[in-house]
Amino acid sequence: MAKLAGFSQPTVSRALRDDARVSVATREKVRKAAAALNSVPSEAGRTLSTRSTQRIGVIVTDLTNPFYPHLVAPLHDELQRLGYRMMLITERSDEAVSSERLLDQSLDGVVLTTATTESRLPDELDRRGLPYVFLNRDSGRQGDYTSVADNEGGGRQVARLLVELGHRRIAGIFGARNTTTGRDRELGFRLELAEAGVGLAEELVRRGPFAYETGHDALRDLLSASHPPTAVFCGNDVVAMGVLNAALAAGVRVPEDLTVIGFDDLPMAGWEVFRLTTVRHDLRELSCQAAQLLVRRIRKEAAATGERLVMPTELVLRETHAPPA
Amino acid sequence: MAKLAGFSQPTVSRALRDDARVSVATREKVRKAAAALNSVPSEAGRTLSTRSTQRIGVIVTDLTNPFYPHLVAPLHDELQRLGYRMMLITERSDEAVSSERLLDQSLDGVVLTTATTESRLPDELDRRGLPYVFLNRDSGRQGDYTSVADNEGGGRQVARLLVELGHRRIAGIFGARNTTTGRDRELGFRLELAEAGVGLAEELVRRGPFAYETGHDALRDLLSASHPPTAVFCGNDVVAMGVLNAALAAGVRVPEDLTVIGFDDLPMAGWEVFRLTTVRHDLRELSCQAAQLLVRRIRKEAAATGERLVMPTELVLRETHAPPA
Repeated sequence: MAKLAGFSQPTVSRALRDDARVSVATREKVRKAAAALNSVPSEAGRTLSTRSTQRIGVIVTDLTNPFYPHLVAPLHDELQRLGYRMMLITERSDEAVSSERLLDQSLDGVVLTTATTESRLPDELDRRGLPYVFLNRDSGRQGDYTSVADNEGGGRQVARLLVELGHRRIAGIFGARNTTTGRDRELGFRLELAEAGVGLAEELVRRGPFAYETGHDALRDLLSASHPPTAVFCGNDVVAMGVLNAALAAGVRVPEDLTVIGFDDLPMAGWEVFRLTTVRHDLRELSCQAAQLLVRRIRKEAAATGERLVMPTELVLRETHAPPA
Repeated sequence: MAKLAGFSQPTVSRALRDDARVSVATREKVRKAAAALNSVPSEAGRTLSTRSTQRIGVIVTDLTNPFYPHLVAPLHDELQRLGYRMMLITERSDEAVSSERLLDQSLDGVVLTTATTESRLPDELDRRGLPYVFLNRDSGRQGDYTSVADNEGGGRQVARLLVELGHRRIAGIFGARNTTTGRDRELGFRLELAEAGVGLAEELVRRGPFAYETGHDALRDLLSASHPPTAVFCGNDVVAMGVLNAALAAGVRVPEDLTVIGFDDLPMAGWEVFRLTTVRHDLRELSCQAAQLLVRRIRKEAAATGERLVMPTELVLRETHAPPA
């Protein structure tokens, strides 16, 4: 492909991508020669001449977590609409993704969906000059480029609901401390409770990854307390699914004996077996915003001091909340 | 990068990937020069010199379907173990994926997880000489390279269970006719029922995509029949989740009023709210086999006449089956 029909490699590359610097006649000749060879424009050849691959890496640590597909699918579609291809990079942790590997893949940019506040990857990418954005997470520092829900505001909405229902013995199964998503939801929840003069007993606080098992294990544990909670706020819907299943296993009726609130409003939250009361934010929009922000960064059109796009949240009142018995 | 420290491009490429054809001293010099430039080995440069990208494309039409992550995650890990990187290609249908696009991405091979029997893509890939394998699907023709469950055998196991329980008014919500997965499960189910002398009334047969909505809509419809079924076999677990939720919404008790059987044994099938009786096959092993088969094909070590790897199935008896009332 480097040389074709006697034309130089740059001419061939330009002709195959319809670059106006090559005459229409030459473009036609090159195309015919390429077709005769049963060949197609090679991305590799194009990369060396333009230095842009139109490829975006998306880092996700656990694809089998029911949450991530709802970020990844709209992200893929939006990136495609913007002319980019998505490369999914799934690792056990962001730490396992070296910046070398990302640069080696000649990516134009990266979306970080599972960064922890301790991750060194963002600094590495800054140093290497590879544009990136956070999605549903951030570093918790100034200057991030990120698309997140109003996690603090959502946490506040849940606390307000529980207080209004009359709950005083409240539990929290929060996300991990080293994720801003977990931290900000917990913060909002605590601030609002404190403002209402309602305490959160430390013995009723659990933390863990945003996973089904986190909720399932934590509820079993909380139920064995001398004074079990009458309400539990879960770090996200997947954790809440674990809680609802553990409640069923333990014979605890929801919402009569226990109010359970989630966060995210995944499609599953609306299923009849759950009818979960939760905090909705627009996951599709969240992902699309991240894609657009990254493309702006790549094109050097984003604000130099960082951009923080925050999506509003709203309570979705289904059937897992009630006043305490 | 093409020229570095006075060495030619092939020498630089070889040095950066530790090729023994380049002396250790030269490798060291090139590495230092690259480090000084804050540069890393470029995949694009490597592609042009070796023609191998170590990249595998995986085509999945709907990532938000809870089934696919359970294929994609182990596939990613196994491909990585074998030295390949996974590129996820998600489209509305396989027809939307042109072979040009796949070749353009300089992939070494492709995994088809959502092929229909009408898809022209396999023939295209054959013609272009791009190695591929089917995973959990195939073309239904001779010569496929595929890793599938024993779908026919699994369908037979379900029919035997329902017959033994005494069900005679049986419904089927099968997968789409143009997928071998749907077709083979339906075939095994029908063959076994016929051998037992039990009929399957056409008015109790529904078909659709392997999606939650398929089961949810179909059950509502089936319940409005003059003689509703006492048992329903679902094309997969995701469809069964739709059925179980619709049953709850309609006040139909499972299994007292209705037996519901799934297929796949996703983790969700074991959740307390479902406790779904289903057909298990090893999804992780299914994916690993497909990855290994593809790599054998790429290395020209696979049988020339096709290879069909079939995983055994077993019934998992949970709590959604019972004799008819």
